[in-house]
Amino acid sequence: MKKIAIIGLGLIGGSLAIELKKYYHAYIIGIDNDEMHLNKSIELGFVDEAGSLPNISSCNLVIIATPVNIIPILAIEILNSISPDTLVIDVGSTKATICNALSHHPKRENYVATHPIAGTEFSGPTAAIPNLFKNKVLIICEKHLSSAALLEKTIQLFENLQMRITFIDDADVHDKQIAYVSHLSHISSFMLGKTVLEKENNENTIFNMAGSGFESTVRLAKSSPKTWTPIFMQNKNNILESLDEYIKNLTLFKDLLVNEDDQQVFEVMKNTNRIKDVLSGINKIKTI
Amino acid sequence: MKKIAIIGLGLIGGSLAIELKKYYHAYIIGIDNDEMHLNKSIELGFVDEAGSLPNISSCNLVIIATPVNIIPILAIEILNSISPDTLVIDVGSTKATICNALSHHPKRENYVATHPIAGTEFSGPTAAIPNLFKNKVLIICEKHLSSAALLEKTIQLFENLQMRITFIDDADVHDKQIAYVSHLSHISSFMLGKTVLEKENNENTIFNMAGSGFESTVRLAKSSPKTWTPIFMQNKNNILESLDEYIKNLTLFKDLLVNEDDQQVFEVMKNTNRIKDVLSGINKIKTI
Repeated sequence: MKKIAIIGLGLIGGSLAIELKKYYHAYIIGIDNDEMHLNKSIELGFVDEAGSLPNISSCNLVIIATPVNIIPILAIEILNSISPDTLVIDVGSTKATICNALSHHPKRENYVATHPIAGTEFSGPTAAIPNLFKNKVLIICEKHLSSAALLEKTIQLFENLQMRITFIDDADVHDKQIAYVSHLSHISSFMLGKTVLEKENNENTIFNMAGSGFESTVRLAKSSPKTWTPIFMQNKNNILESLDEYIKNLTLFKDLLVNEDDQQVFEVMKNTNRIKDVLSGINKIKTI
Repeated sequence: MKKIAIIGLGLIGGSLAIELKKYYHAYIIGIDNDEMHLNKSIELGFVDEAGSLPNISSCNLVIIATPVNIIPILAIEILNSISPDTLVIDVGSTKATICNALSHHPKRENYVATHPIAGTEFSGPTAAIPNLFKNKVLIICEKHLSSAALLEKTIQLFENLQMRITFIDDADVHDKQIAYVSHLSHISSFMLGKTVLEKENNENTIFNMAGSGFESTVRLAKSSPKTWTPIFMQNKNNILESLDEYIKNLTLFKDLLVNEDDQQVFEVMKNTNRIKDVLSGINKIKTI
């Protein structure tokens, strides 16, 4: 039986545990510094045993699914103590700081840096759900620094979870791109929620009008600050660049409204409609 | 048989036609200055006959579902020619300009100003779908200016479509609130899409990473510029106010990142998580 340690039993760690039990009948050792999370995961049935770092050396696979700020330290500590064949994976939303911290580790080739592009706005072990990763993308960074055998094992593992594997060799490139596509979405959503909550004292009004596009656009503002604060801090420079561009575009649009330039307002939206074609492929893949 | 005229055969007009045929077996006279929309609506079966403004006087109900900039002129023209018992409704996303234009019309009491809080990011007659309005909110403005009988008829009509009716007597209040909750969501989404499209030349990267929150946050950027340009222009002042607040909040958040104030970044997100409770009632109602 496969023995797998998962550190961090939240949305991602918990959902991975569910899949690994389903596809591999894996025996899951769960580690979380929040004892309630640990107990809940055992109660929900996707963790078999509460573990601790010193006793994971018998595992063939260790998955780190904690907030990104503690991944580098954890990864080093784990690499220091594992057996030569053990595969260590992290699933954090940032990759550069983690990859840089491990680049000279003698057991770097036991490590595969991944980012599953999957999630919901919910958090903690009760947010763990089946099929979260099905038909989603897994990004692997710096594949050349992982051993060929363990890289292959990782690919197999996530392909069995029905994920599509893509590679971004440069972790800095990953972080810059994900700042624009994912992290900026979260900030735009959080600030939309904040702006509306500050203005509208009557929650019933928000509630009544939310069906008009607000509900879906503000969805990410339900996300966990515990997960996202470290991501924003770690990817600060890229996020600041994307935020600057975003604020610039909002200001330009505001100016078009001030000048009542309806022609340009129309054009800007028309050009942005192109996002429909870019994203339509996603739905094609989803229905495969 | 109920004879109903619908002017503007897009997402909202078309979806209303579908419901009115379902619940009332209504005979629908469709009017649209885009002949392709008209033919498509007849082909799709939710319009029975192509009409024109002069020949709608025999209808008991006229629904105006065009872009908001032409609603005031259309509404006046229609009110001028209808019989005393005919009910005229508009379903535009703004209410103040329309209500102001009609406030002194001798047949104002034949008019009910509504805003169904329902929609998708798609447009045109092919976007018309069944059940679009089910369990959604219908806002009625200036109800005191409509005749009691026709107001009651309107309430009955939309309650039969399983909508929840709410009243905002002051159309200016409606427009200010909807600017924050709905119109700002659309602008934040359009500018998010623009920012990402400008930065990322490789559409495949956007596509691969879109599952990380981008896809849902940018959904509204697929919306029709033909619908939304007039809304933004007509509700300009309120939208400018909401945009200013939004840009201010984004700038404050940016400053927190610059100063690496992770405590405050956490707090701001934690406080905004309250949106979860505000919106949770919606899902309760959805499942009724």
